[in-house]
Amino acid sequence: MRRVRVALAQVNPTVGAIEANARLVADQMARARALGADVVAFPELVLTGYPPEDLLFKPAFIEANLRALADLARQSRALTAVVGFVDKRDDIFNAAAVLHDGAHAGSYHKQYLPNYGVFDENRYFQAGTESPVFAIGPTLLAVNICEDIWYPTGPTSRQALGGAELVISINASPYHAGKARFRERMLATRAADDLVCLAFVNTVGGQDELIFDGQSFVFDEKGERLARGKAFEEDLVVADLDLDEVFRVRLHDSRRRKEKLASDPPARRIALPALSPRERPPLAPPEVAQLDPVDEIYRALCLGTRDYVRKNGFGHVVLGLSGGIDSALVAAIACDALGAANVTGVTMPSAYSSKGTRHDAARLARNLGIEFFSLPIGGVLKAYRRALHRPFKGLEEDVTEENLQARIRGNYLMSLSNKFGWLVLTTGNKSEIGVGYTTLYGDMAGGFAVIKDVPKTLVYQLAEHANHRAGRPVIPKSVFERAPSAELRPNQTDQDTLPPYPELDAILEAYVEGDQGLGEIVARGHDEATVKRVIAMVDRNEYKRRQGPIGIKITPRAFGKDWRLPIVNRFRE
Amino acid sequence: MRRVRVALAQVNPTVGAIEANARLVADQMARARALGADVVAFPELVLTGYPPEDLLFKPAFIEANLRALADLARQSRALTAVVGFVDKRDDIFNAAAVLHDGAHAGSYHKQYLPNYGVFDENRYFQAGTESPVFAIGPTLLAVNICEDIWYPTGPTSRQALGGAELVISINASPYHAGKARFRERMLATRAADDLVCLAFVNTVGGQDELIFDGQSFVFDEKGERLARGKAFEEDLVVADLDLDEVFRVRLHDSRRRKEKLASDPPARRIALPALSPRERPPLAPPEVAQLDPVDEIYRALCLGTRDYVRKNGFGHVVLGLSGGIDSALVAAIACDALGAANVTGVTMPSAYSSKGTRHDAARLARNLGIEFFSLPIGGVLKAYRRALHRPFKGLEEDVTEENLQARIRGNYLMSLSNKFGWLVLTTGNKSEIGVGYTTLYGDMAGGFAVIKDVPKTLVYQLAEHANHRAGRPVIPKSVFERAPSAELRPNQTDQDTLPPYPELDAILEAYVEGDQGLGEIVARGHDEATVKRVIAMVDRNEYKRRQGPIGIKITPRAFGKDWRLPIVNRFRE
Repeated sequence: MRRVRVALAQVNPTVGAIEANARLVADQMARARALGADVVAFPELVLTGYPPEDLLFKPAFIEANLRALADLARQSRALTAVVGFVDKRDDIFNAAAVLHDGAHAGSYHKQYLPNYGVFDENRYFQAGTESPVFAIGPTLLAVNICEDIWYPTGPTSRQALGGAELVISINASPYHAGKARFRERMLATRAADDLVCLAFVNTVGGQDELIFDGQSFVFDEKGERLARGKAFEEDLVVADLDLDEVFRVRLHDSRRRKEKLASDPPARRIALPALSPRERPPLAPPEVAQLDPVDEIYRALCLGTRDYVRKNGFGHVVLGLSGGIDSALVAAIACDALGAANVTGVTMPSAYSSKGTRHDAARLARNLGIEFFSLPIGGVLKAYRRALHRPFKGLEEDVTEENLQARIRGNYLMSLSNKFGWLVLTTGNKSEIGVGYTTLYGDMAGGFAVIKDVPKTLVYQLAEHANHRAGRPVIPKSVFERAPSAELRPNQTDQDTLPPYPELDAILEAYVEGDQGLGEIVARGHDEATVKRVIAMVDRNEYKRRQGPIGIKITPRAFGKDWRLPIVNRFRE
Repeated sequence: MRRVRVALAQVNPTVGAIEANARLVADQMARARALGADVVAFPELVLTGYPPEDLLFKPAFIEANLRALADLARQSRALTAVVGFVDKRDDIFNAAAVLHDGAHAGSYHKQYLPNYGVFDENRYFQAGTESPVFAIGPTLLAVNICEDIWYPTGPTSRQALGGAELVISINASPYHAGKARFRERMLATRAADDLVCLAFVNTVGGQDELIFDGQSFVFDEKGERLARGKAFEEDLVVADLDLDEVFRVRLHDSRRRKEKLASDPPARRIALPALSPRERPPLAPPEVAQLDPVDEIYRALCLGTRDYVRKNGFGHVVLGLSGGIDSALVAAIACDALGAANVTGVTMPSAYSSKGTRHDAARLARNLGIEFFSLPIGGVLKAYRRALHRPFKGLEEDVTEENLQARIRGNYLMSLSNKFGWLVLTTGNKSEIGVGYTTLYGDMAGGFAVIKDVPKTLVYQLAEHANHRAGRPVIPKSVFERAPSAELRPNQTDQDTLPPYPELDAILEAYVEGDQGLGEIVARGHDEATVKRVIAMVDRNEYKRRQGPIGIKITPRAFGKDWRLPIVNRFRE
């Protein structure tokens, strides 16, 4: 019987840390071997981390990755390993190496290079053209990379028609909420369409604004899921496949045979010697449950925060606690990501801060068990007023003085960052950042914007979830109930100048994620004047977003690499 | 005799301002008609402005541009006009419309889509495949777009083999220093290679970080330049071409005939009725001289500043005057770009500011004739120290207190911006921004970074040029002679922590523009420890650059759209 044990090493590499990434690969190769795996697969560009961006223009970077691959080839005795790397021929390729029993047996070059959304692969890579099949003794195996699997007539289909019974798809597939379900359905269909066992390995971890969620899969030739990897954690997924069964099923399939005749020239076949038979310890099939949608996002934010902080070499974070829901949520996420001992909260009250918000900030800090102190801004504000007295003489107070308050707070946090080496987390949400309801160099000052892609309505759900996880109201009930306010002038609330958040978020989603115009959004039942005002605010505030810190992408379109609007822009609907 | 009068309308459109851009086109069509031109050509994507970036995802944007084109077609009576626009079929195309005698006669779709450097055209457009030739009565004319002309076997060659005697290349070709000479040489060669008259029209103006320099050209079929458009200004370039001469020259060329036989299927020919003969007032051939290299850069910076300020709807700018060379240069550029009446300089002295720098700041302002005042930072700094006294108790002063000074200055300028609606210009140069010798939210606070792509050594040359232009030492001699210093602690100079600027700039150019590694740079004769230190500074400060304001690109690789490095990045050479 032709049984294959496949292992998917869902690891968390770091961009640029080529040697450390290679050690991750070597460790998991050893682990897979001990588990009796015949083949172990690693994510797309695991050696360089993904996306390496313009590091790919550095010849020294490419060479370092090739050296690491050559080392790993030597360590692949008694095993087949599929390893993502940058191949260098007359150009560079996003590639998968097949390492087999101590040697680099062959490579596959990614054919479909994504250049939309957050992706710029045409900037760097040449596209591959070949869809080889590796015959390892009696096992017919093929490899392709990420975007390739999304095309129904792409390499997977050609490789299956070329005889492959197991196709391994290696990925660095960025997360957004709900994508995993969509991906799983597509993969199941692909396996069944092509009558092929499909092993999908995805990277895990955070890289700048991107999260990779893991959730690797193994499907049989009927599209039945045999195994699923953990979400947002490293994992080694192992499954046994019966390739004789693939052959049997294919014999019954007449559609397939006709397609084969009609197809392109047959895939090139690369023959490799079979490995000697090995002992295979029995597998306990660990079924990993799918996450609840809000829990999924919460975990994504925790992973993104942890990885950004740690991979940049920070140990401790600081954030302003206003007593509002946004900073409360960010504090809770920071604690889950880094531990309460590594989080400091600072309240920075002004004359406009209510007793309620001050009290709630303190209570939240106590509930979370984080370091907490208060730095009032009144004295510094007074000094600024004095210093600016002459040029501002005779003029009314306006947004200038509001922004100054926010900027004093930003300076306090940056001073703590400078003095103690802490990373500042900002607390702005997607709704505020969308309409520019934020102060540049004020509340936007910091290294990482944890919830920048989380609309305000979802902030509330995530905050409730944080309390649910904790099993107690870590975030005080009063924080949920108070009307959102920047507290920069007396009795100010967000709703003075913005539509209610459920309406604002619906308009923003249509405009930002949906590229819908005024007419289309109004047709969804929104007031025209409101929609016009919101759109104008989004357009007008591009310059602020351009200078804001990066943050975690959780929607199909974040204010990040997938949002490239000009600042000089006179387009009005 | 088949004579053609061609006009190249080197206009300055604004991204998104579709109606205003269409008016520009209509005006120049009328002007060209009055000058007796048979054909008038406009730049690439003149209707939308270039680059429109993600505005291209908005269906309403595409539709607005199509409506504007239809209007212009109706206005093209008794003329042929080539107009850049976004065409919409089953996908969108970067296109050139041939408007002829009141109708839209046909379109060309750009075939080579640049996706490197600052370009992302694969993100948006489908590539064209056809190279049509328009037969307008006896005149054989073809059109292609920007990148297309850079390929020796591209559309120009196919169109010439297909009979075209005049090829019009419409462009939005971004400026960097020295590019114009290179472009001119290439175009002359292309015309001579293909035995074709070549009319190259380029857009002019600033768009965010990009400058378009104009400098349109007309070449005859021998590669001789017949006309050149102005640099950094709007212009209407008109030239007469003798197409019978093209035919005569081709008769003698046997190489060409063989190639024709060996070529692809012949270009599709689109026949249009000839226009009735028109009066052609005689042309005074205005020869525009090439600029001196430093003057060229100075003018580019003026245009970029003027367009960013004006196109964003600002009238007045403010900047900090430190008494140093960088802010002096930016002030001089701002005055040339906007007029001295629209510039305010602010000196913001601290206890560490020397008498010399304070005096020089005032003298510079007086020489330029700009508004000037002083806002000392001592009082606010004292208030910050007091406010932070408790958390900083027992700790030494360090970079925290230096940054605070820079941030108070940033807040002052932003407060003036908020109160008076002025745009803040920042004054950091490329050398400082490269090594991170800048303070986030401090001297980096502002809307536009005029000299962010100008290395320090070039800052001095440009400052000398500014004095040369003015015909007197507007920038005082003492500013040139003083050792550069941030004046954030006693007796500090830049050279305390940085190598001398000529050395620093050479290392930065190799690393940033050349993607050279440690070994290669050391091999050029630099000290290894120094190179290592500089590279580490560049790598470590990516997070700062990501939050800095945009600024004008003048080198082949600026810290902008053509520099896409990850923040999480552990690659070390």
